[in-house]
Amino acid sequence: VYVLRRLHAADDEPDAATLGLHFDLTVPFARYVLENAGKLDFPFRRYQIQKVWRGERPQDGRYREFTQADIDVVARDALPFHHDVEIARVMAQALTRLAFLPPLRLQVNNRKLIEGFYRGVGAPDPSAVMRAIDKLDKLPPAAVEKLLIEQAQVSTEQARLCLELASIRTTDSSFADKVSALGVQHELLSAGITELVAVIDGCQPFASDRFVVEADLSIARGLDYYTGTVFETRMAGHEHLGSICSGGRYDSLASDGTTTYPGVGISLGVTRLLVPLLIRGELSASRSVPSAVLVAVVSDDDRGPSEAVADALRARGIATEVAGSAAKFGRQIRSAERRGVPFVWFPAHGEVGHEVKDIRSGDQVAADPALWEPPAGDRRPTVNTVSTASSEPKVEAK
Amino acid sequence: VYVLRRLHAADDEPDAATLGLHFDLTVPFARYVLENAGKLDFPFRRYQIQKVWRGERPQDGRYREFTQADIDVVARDALPFHHDVEIARVMAQALTRLAFLPPLRLQVNNRKLIEGFYRGVGAPDPSAVMRAIDKLDKLPPAAVEKLLIEQAQVSTEQARLCLELASIRTTDSSFADKVSALGVQHELLSAGITELVAVIDGCQPFASDRFVVEADLSIARGLDYYTGTVFETRMAGHEHLGSICSGGRYDSLASDGTTTYPGVGISLGVTRLLVPLLIRGELSASRSVPSAVLVAVVSDDDRGPSEAVADALRARGIATEVAGSAAKFGRQIRSAERRGVPFVWFPAHGEVGHEVKDIRSGDQVAADPALWEPPAGDRRPTVNTVSTASSEPKVEAK
Repeated sequence: VYVLRRLHAADDEPDAATLGLHFDLTVPFARYVLENAGKLDFPFRRYQIQKVWRGERPQDGRYREFTQADIDVVARDALPFHHDVEIARVMAQALTRLAFLPPLRLQVNNRKLIEGFYRGVGAPDPSAVMRAIDKLDKLPPAAVEKLLIEQAQVSTEQARLCLELASIRTTDSSFADKVSALGVQHELLSAGITELVAVIDGCQPFASDRFVVEADLSIARGLDYYTGTVFETRMAGHEHLGSICSGGRYDSLASDGTTTYPGVGISLGVTRLLVPLLIRGELSASRSVPSAVLVAVVSDDDRGPSEAVADALRARGIATEVAGSAAKFGRQIRSAERRGVPFVWFPAHGEVGHEVKDIRSGDQVAADPALWEPPAGDRRPTVNTVSTASSEPKVEAK
Repeated sequence: VYVLRRLHAADDEPDAATLGLHFDLTVPFARYVLENAGKLDFPFRRYQIQKVWRGERPQDGRYREFTQADIDVVARDALPFHHDVEIARVMAQALTRLAFLPPLRLQVNNRKLIEGFYRGVGAPDPSAVMRAIDKLDKLPPAAVEKLLIEQAQVSTEQARLCLELASIRTTDSSFADKVSALGVQHELLSAGITELVAVIDGCQPFASDRFVVEADLSIARGLDYYTGTVFETRMAGHEHLGSICSGGRYDSLASDGTTTYPGVGISLGVTRLLVPLLIRGELSASRSVPSAVLVAVVSDDDRGPSEAVADALRARGIATEVAGSAAKFGRQIRSAERRGVPFVWFPAHGEVGHEVKDIRSGDQVAADPALWEPPAGDRRPTVNTVSTASSEPKVEAK
């Protein structure tokens, strides 16, 4: 989307115009696979968390510069189907660990299933049917039926079956029976059902009220470039963001003319997911700084004893800062309090030994800089969640 | 350096031409401070690890797109000097933890010291003296002396003193005596000596054969924009890369016309540091994948038992992959071996219970997926170091 121009570029600088910014992480990955095919051990799994750039008008959930986190598996010539299940399971397991997120719904569909069904009903142009079905989230079914008949050139009965198929949503593999009940037969349809059953079943160990895994046969977006499994993910109370985690199977992620590299992957929109939650205050940090401890300073003439305490704590991985000046202790404590730093350390001075104060409880105890540990929950800032009214409803199958 | 143009940009899109890529992390930080001054708690400390872009011709140690890691402290109106010591200590502590790096030398100088000395000797244009002294790493002293006399308009005796000053390098605060021995007096010189002594002394707890901290009074680069402390860092055997970690004190990091925000910071060139070491094989990973365990597959018809083992291990943070197919166990083991995965897990099958094999020793033992732990050293890939001849010599003060 963006090309670069170097300011003061010389006229004889041919490559300036050929530099651009990544639109996604899939195209650079495909290029990497082609350039390194001789060195890679296939199937090759990779994750990549990186910024990408789009030509967006910046708004809620849409950014010009944002971060994606992708996982993909790619093979040479053939990639066994079980990697579709693996990708779904890995992302499901990762997302269920993010317990601070609103409830999520992973929606899965399969192009073979959809295309096989459309072929089975005798639709002359399955792609046109997909394009019409894709409008279901914007148009009422009657309007989509009209599109199916007029643009996809199917009969009223064929349109009814296609709309029936798109209405199927189940959180287990019972969708397969519902599809069979429609009485349509096609080899590709059977293959697609088998695959979708495997993905839905494979994700069951991670399914819960807060992480719904659902076969949703209305998903048609992306089915023009995916060749099998397709993933989308909605976040409860934030459906207007669209899918926050999408992907699928490409039978030809990359190709050099003689060899084809099929892949399956999924991409989490890190910025799209987190920024709206942060902006609305649904997510916040337990403190505004990493520091677990502020070491008080006794005398501006000698910061050494305070620095030594900080060194001893930091050497054991405890985030520590030293107060800016030897203000009254009450003022040093308030400076910690203001930023949520839970502990203030008073270095040994005069007759008094080292002491550390939990400024929430006020408890102050003797402590050794070489041994003292904060409670595990205070070591790092934690994520606070505030459910807003709109994110309260649990995610349920529609 | 780079400005962006959106492909297919509309003519009425005025902002396309005003978008650019970061040249460094300091300018964006200064802008952030000005825009958020009302909300920040000063002194404000921040770290930032991010990509920046330069108009380089890509070569060893020079990149068009690379990653920097910056730490800075900024205050409103006045920033106590002890933050210069803090910044030096934090970076020293961080770098000494990177035990896989070749020996490093943190070189510190101070603009007040240098400028005060030049004023004390009566140089008419201290900046011109600095520009000449900055040439010392490229020209012999006699040539620099000529520059001093001709361009900085100092006398032969003044030039001698300036060159004497630039020859002072000590790994402790004894440089102060050597400066005093030159018999030059100036208020600014005294202030600079006091500051540089504090930085050098403050870093002593982290100094070692592998991390030399040195007052180097020849450092003149950056002294045109820094106003006090200046840092550079060299890596043994890789001196041609220049400084891999630089920074200093700006008395005016940012200003909005009425308020000034002084800052002190240092920036680590992550890419410049690591890529040459990786390219030369001085650094490598103990294995090519994160996986500590490969779970073998007994039957292609049922990957479930293997996936269940992987889930149990992953739930405890053990990076695990499942074999691609139920090939002969010997072949599955070789696939792990090829990528350095240290353990192969054989899921319970038939009469045989779960077993795990350390493929380096060949030891195979019974194990419970819910309890087994790899040795701590095998949990994650580790960094292997190979010292090349050129990085063998210890870093020593010249």
